Amino acid sequence: MEDNVILCDIGNTFVHFLEGEKESKFLTADFEPAKVKEEVFYISVNPALDEKLAALPNWHDLRSCIDWQQYYTTMGIDRIMACEAVENALIIDAGSAITVDLVTDGRFEGGFIYPGVVAMQACYRNISPRLDYSLNFELDLDKMPKNSRDAISYGVLRTLYSEVIRHNRKIYLTGGDAKILAKIFPEAVVDEQLLFKGMKKMMEKRC
Amino acid sequence: MEDNVILCDIGNTFVHFLEGEKESKFLTADFEPAKVKEEVFYISVNPALDEKLAALPNWHDLRSCIDWQQYYTTMGIDRIMACEAVENALIIDAGSAITVDLVTDGRFEGGFIYPGVVAMQACYRNISPRLDYSLNFELDLDKMPKNSRDAISYGVLRTLYSEVIRHNRKIYLTGGDAKILAKIFPEAVVDEQLLFKGMKKMMEKRC
Repeated sequence: MEDNVILCDIGNTFVHFLEGEKESKFLTADFEPAKVKEEVFYISVNPALDEKLAALPNWHDLRSCIDWQQYYTTMGIDRIMACEAVENALIIDAGSAITVDLVTDGRFEGGFIYPGVVAMQACYRNISPRLDYSLNFELDLDKMPKNSRDAISYGVLRTLYSEVIRHNRKIYLTGGDAKILAKIFPEAVVDEQLLFKGMKKMMEKRC
Repeated sequence: MEDNVILCDIGNTFVHFLEGEKESKFLTADFEPAKVKEEVFYISVNPALDEKLAALPNWHDLRSCIDWQQYYTTMGIDRIMACEAVENALIIDAGSAITVDLVTDGRFEGGFIYPGVVAMQACYRNISPRLDYSLNFELDLDKMPKNSRDAISYGVLRTLYSEVIRHNRKIYLTGGDAKILAKIFPEAVVDEQLLFKGMKKMMEKRC
């Protein structure tokens, strides 16, 4: 694989590029792939862009490289690439949704999908205007709350935390909200290029 | 307290009456309190109805009976009444929101707020049409999922379960979704009249 290859991860909210060591990010809603003339190896979870991309000969979908025996067909390809990057770990990819995936000896063991931080705040707001709070990431996870903001923050963060630590694994945090979630998971390794690492590894192995 | 007293619990979605042993339920959106001519003792978490109710002399708000020293002012009064009903337990009140409250030796120790089942399903749907699933309450909680519906169901239900069982307490389930959540918490006691029990107890003690 050449060093100057361009990798691209297309999410529901952001389009994330890596060219050499240079990263760049754009809003998915504003993104026009036909403007990119270089060869790009990409993954996409965005159905609206998939058709456009398929028509562009310089955009190469890494979907075809996946060993589908260990994953399932409706699994987000971003989750698969993160899993490809590690050997033994629990991966938290925190974006529009928060995906939590378990990899043991290089094999995907299953995972779950939790709503992202922004989606969760909207979720409470939609239940009642009385539940409209921004999350408190400085929350004491060892104390049942006695105020509304912490009661909601604990509802979002402590439940996720209780399930994650139960697995007693090395934790990787990636995605747009990785840094803010690291406040809740101080033991986790933050790696914002985890998906790109998985993409590179897969291209070396199979493409 | 007379036996023929009418109790009423006004939630965000439903208005729930108890008269003797007879229960009835109405949609909050359609409910017109002025049509009730009997004496009613009520609690309400619905700001839209509060003003109307205050103007009706036969509607008696139990808010004034609460010992606020052990609760906090923005805490939903429905949660307070459920806490008043027990001595040592963890209470899950599953409605538009799912509240989880801890009571030890008759004192409130804190609690948290999780989105309700319907709100959670809408939350995933709003993130992406690819995440639009109804929850699977028959889910195996001991296995990390390998399909989308279970990945979402596990995200909603296993996270909540992991946090709840950590407290190692007797569990009471109440609220409109108590029965469906009992599939996840088979060890819990389902008591759909828990709030009314708290209201009665409070009226005997202090009103």
